Amino acid sequence: MKHYTSIYDIDNINSWIEEAKAIKTNPFKHIQLGKNKTLGLLFFNSSLRTRLSTQKAALNLGMNPIVMNVSGDAWGIEFGDGTVMNGSTAEHIKEAAAVVSQYCDVIAVRAFPTLKNKAKDESEQVMNAFKKYASVPIVNMESATGHPLQGLTDALTISEYAKVTKPKVVLSWAPHIKALPHAVANSFIQAMQKMDVEFVITNPEGYDLNPEITKNTPIYHNQEEAFKNADFVYAKNWSSYEDYGKVNKTDSNWMITKAKLGGAKFMHCLPVRRNVVVEDAVLDSDSSLVIEQANNRTYAAQLVLKKLLEDL
Amino acid sequence: MKHYTSIYDIDNINSWIEEAKAIKTNPFKHIQLGKNKTLGLLFFNSSLRTRLSTQKAALNLGMNPIVMNVSGDAWGIEFGDGTVMNGSTAEHIKEAAAVVSQYCDVIAVRAFPTLKNKAKDESEQVMNAFKKYASVPIVNMESATGHPLQGLTDALTISEYAKVTKPKVVLSWAPHIKALPHAVANSFIQAMQKMDVEFVITNPEGYDLNPEITKNTPIYHNQEEAFKNADFVYAKNWSSYEDYGKVNKTDSNWMITKAKLGGAKFMHCLPVRRNVVVEDAVLDSDSSLVIEQANNRTYAAQLVLKKLLEDL
Amino acid sequence: MKHYTSIYDIDNINSWIEEAKAIKTNPFKHIQLGKNKTLGLLFFNSSLRTRLSTQKAALNLGMNPIVMNVSGDAWGIEFGDGTVMNGSTAEHIKEAAAVVSQYCDVIAVRAFPTLKNKAKDESEQVMNAFKKYASVPIVNMESATGHPLQGLTDALTISEYAKVTKPKVVLSWAPHIKALPHAVANSFIQAMQKMDVEFVITNPEGYDLNPEITKNTPIYHNQEEAFKNADFVYAKNWSSYEDYGKVNKTDSNWMITKAKLGGAKFMHCLPVRRNVVVEDAVLDSDSSLVIEQANNRTYAAQLVLKKLLEDL
Repeated sequence: MKHYTSIYDIDNINSWIEEAKAIKTNPFKHIQLGKNKTLGLLFFNSSLRTRLSTQKAALNLGMNPIVMNVSGDAWGIEFGDGTVMNGSTAEHIKEAAAVVSQYCDVIAVRAFPTLKNKAKDESEQVMNAFKKYASVPIVNMESATGHPLQGLTDALTISEYAKVTKPKVVLSWAPHIKALPHAVANSFIQAMQKMDVEFVITNPEGYDLNPEITKNTPIYHNQEEAFKNADFVYAKNWSSYEDYGKVNKTDSNWMITKAKLGGAKFMHCLPVRRNVVVEDAVLDSDSSLVIEQANNRTYAAQLVLKKLLEDL
Repeated sequence: MKHYTSIYDIDNINSWIEEAKAIKTNPFKHIQLGKNKTLGLLFFNSSLRTRLSTQKAALNLGMNPIVMNVSGDAWGIEFGDGTVMNGSTAEHIKEAAAVVSQYCDVIAVRAFPTLKNKAKDESEQVMNAFKKYASVPIVNMESATGHPLQGLTDALTISEYAKVTKPKVVLSWAPHIKALPHAVANSFIQAMQKMDVEFVITNPEGYDLNPEITKNTPIYHNQEEAFKNADFVYAKNWSSYEDYGKVNKTDSNWMITKAKLGGAKFMHCLPVRRNVVVEDAVLDSDSSLVIEQANNRTYAAQLVLKKLLEDL
Repeated sequence: MKHYTSIYDIDNINSWIEEAKAIKTNPFKHIQLGKNKTLGLLFFNSSLRTRLSTQKAALNLGMNPIVMNVSGDAWGIEFGDGTVMNGSTAEHIKEAAAVVSQYCDVIAVRAFPTLKNKAKDESEQVMNAFKKYASVPIVNMESATGHPLQGLTDALTISEYAKVTKPKVVLSWAPHIKALPHAVANSFIQAMQKMDVEFVITNPEGYDLNPEITKNTPIYHNQEEAFKNADFVYAKNWSSYEDYGKVNKTDSNWMITKAKLGGAKFMHCLPVRRNVVVEDAVLDSDSSLVIEQANNRTYAAQLVLKKLLEDL
């Protein structure tokens, strides 16, 4: 594997899940693999779980993680070709990516979408520029349109907790007060489409995600109908894709409640706003898998880094 | 030991001091103890000495330190039970503490008081929430009401430099232009109350500290009287406890001078404002122990981490 | 070697270059040398290359790097002697430097000039105060008047790519929209003056650098004339030294172009503003050594750290 920037980089999700489970059983087994190797973690946006879990994954492999918080202001990066750089950008991505490649054996990048310019966001400018101009593997720590470390984590978690051969998994939109990206939802959809699960999406009208990602996954605009016989309910807010980046609906009817959930397990990538996205009664019950998901972030990241290190 | 969040977590201060001295003699002796263990250092407030010394302590034990500067704005944490989180807080401490526990074997937290709301500060909301919701040991790197790593450091330093069996130790209020917390003073008092020393406090009227902490330690409102025959003078500013968080007095009569100090050793936790808290002639003399105190921060933190690691 | 804060600390540049080349061939050979040693990296100003390459160098030697971003506001350091510190500064450099020395075996410091007060900048207040009050070696990661890690890097790079015994090296001023420091130019000049090269400087009138640094190096105010038969062209903007810190000229006639460059190799310390300092056609050609320079930053830093560790 050359890079890990999308769920589509997973060649066989079932074998990946098995390997992640093996890593979880014995996380320090491959501590020699990353010896004298450096992981650069570049954050254009802030992070808690992703930063800590990816650092932990690197340490478990014996790598040296180096964290850089790249504030857009302090280190304005130019992406345009042929630009006369007499404005606010001080360094071109051609140099920046090539330079960081001199010090790091793998580069992990987080760069959120604008949620204002759909075409720009969908071009995945930052992630693709790093892939183009860096000379080392790139890991996506959440980009404009995907969060494949989270998607892999979620696939692992569902595999661990599934009690039937082909569980029913529901991705449900839930309310939020701010405009949030589509990245987590997109990668979850792509992961579920690769798994042997019955997968449906439910969201209000006007909140259908990119049809190139949802493909033929059923979309229900009636949450109750979608939740019938669910084994896993994955909640996530996203802003409108059609009316790009807009928050047209915040009413609490779509909040996940214990009553709605029934016997299903509850999943969320965190951070989660309690009693807005989901009620306390869910998060504080045994039905919630959110902490276990957070734990699995380490093993998903470790699997990805292991595969990249093995192919260096 | 489960957590280290207060001087009261020290079961036997004399044996702790002896063990800290042994660590100082051979700081890398236990470098295998922390192998593959991660220390998360979460700073809600900035830090120089505490951050560097605690990182160094972790490294001396072979641990991997991971530093997170948690700006209150960027990562607004909710502490209220049952809150509908539709405001500025994005993650509940229930999730935050549980999640960080997935990646770190020990969590160290710094969170200063408001100095505006006495009840809130005394509830030690942040530290207690981490203790309640984290699944790993918590270390207090200075909280609203205590700084037990500093207090342990100070006890070690006094033990090292005491020339008599039962030295006289004076904690003296000193002037400052800003409202400062009570944490350092509180932990120093608690540590001295456990030591075999003659301990007195001196501060202007209106600056008596919490009587539940000072207990029956003598408090002098006359600095000169308190300093008589002192072996150690520990200077520290704090804002009023009675008139909570207020600075009602900044006159320089209480500044520590060489003349006042006499033959006593001078101590301060640093940073110190020269010629406001204490005059140059003291800090630049052999009477000052402030750099040795700073050095001992490493061994105090290392002892605490060692005890926590041994009990994991 | 006690400190590395200037190119003048290099006793024999040719033997240093040979040793740096040996390190580059086998970067992990001395990984035991830094075992249990800590490098403190203190940034009063932001950094990409210097931070990553110096961290990488430390890791290659087995050291533990600890990064501190010292914002001038948050940690106002007092440098004046005898100051009554009742203003914005919270800690005196006497304490700050001595304290950091307790936790770090080597301290690396970055502190840019004001570009407003020539006398203050030339006094190298920050770097000299660290040298005076720290008890461990100090490394200059770019100060008011010098960037000796960059200068050493550049000497190494020229030695690697020189095709003739005594190559012609030209340092050329190039346009920029902001007032930039003289540090990189100064250290490059000092390094070239130690090398067996034909070295000339070219800049517009009014942009001559400090004559105590340029000494008898020829200065051309005609760029074309200077570039004749050049083997290496090192481009760098700097603000006026005579009219201190001013930008009196930004016209693009001084931009480096492929046509001007001829067969010479192009060098720049980065970051570089494309099509302002140098045109795309240069940076995107085989004539550019900028990425190789960035790579050599690691080995220059590693050589310096190695020498300091050997003399601890």
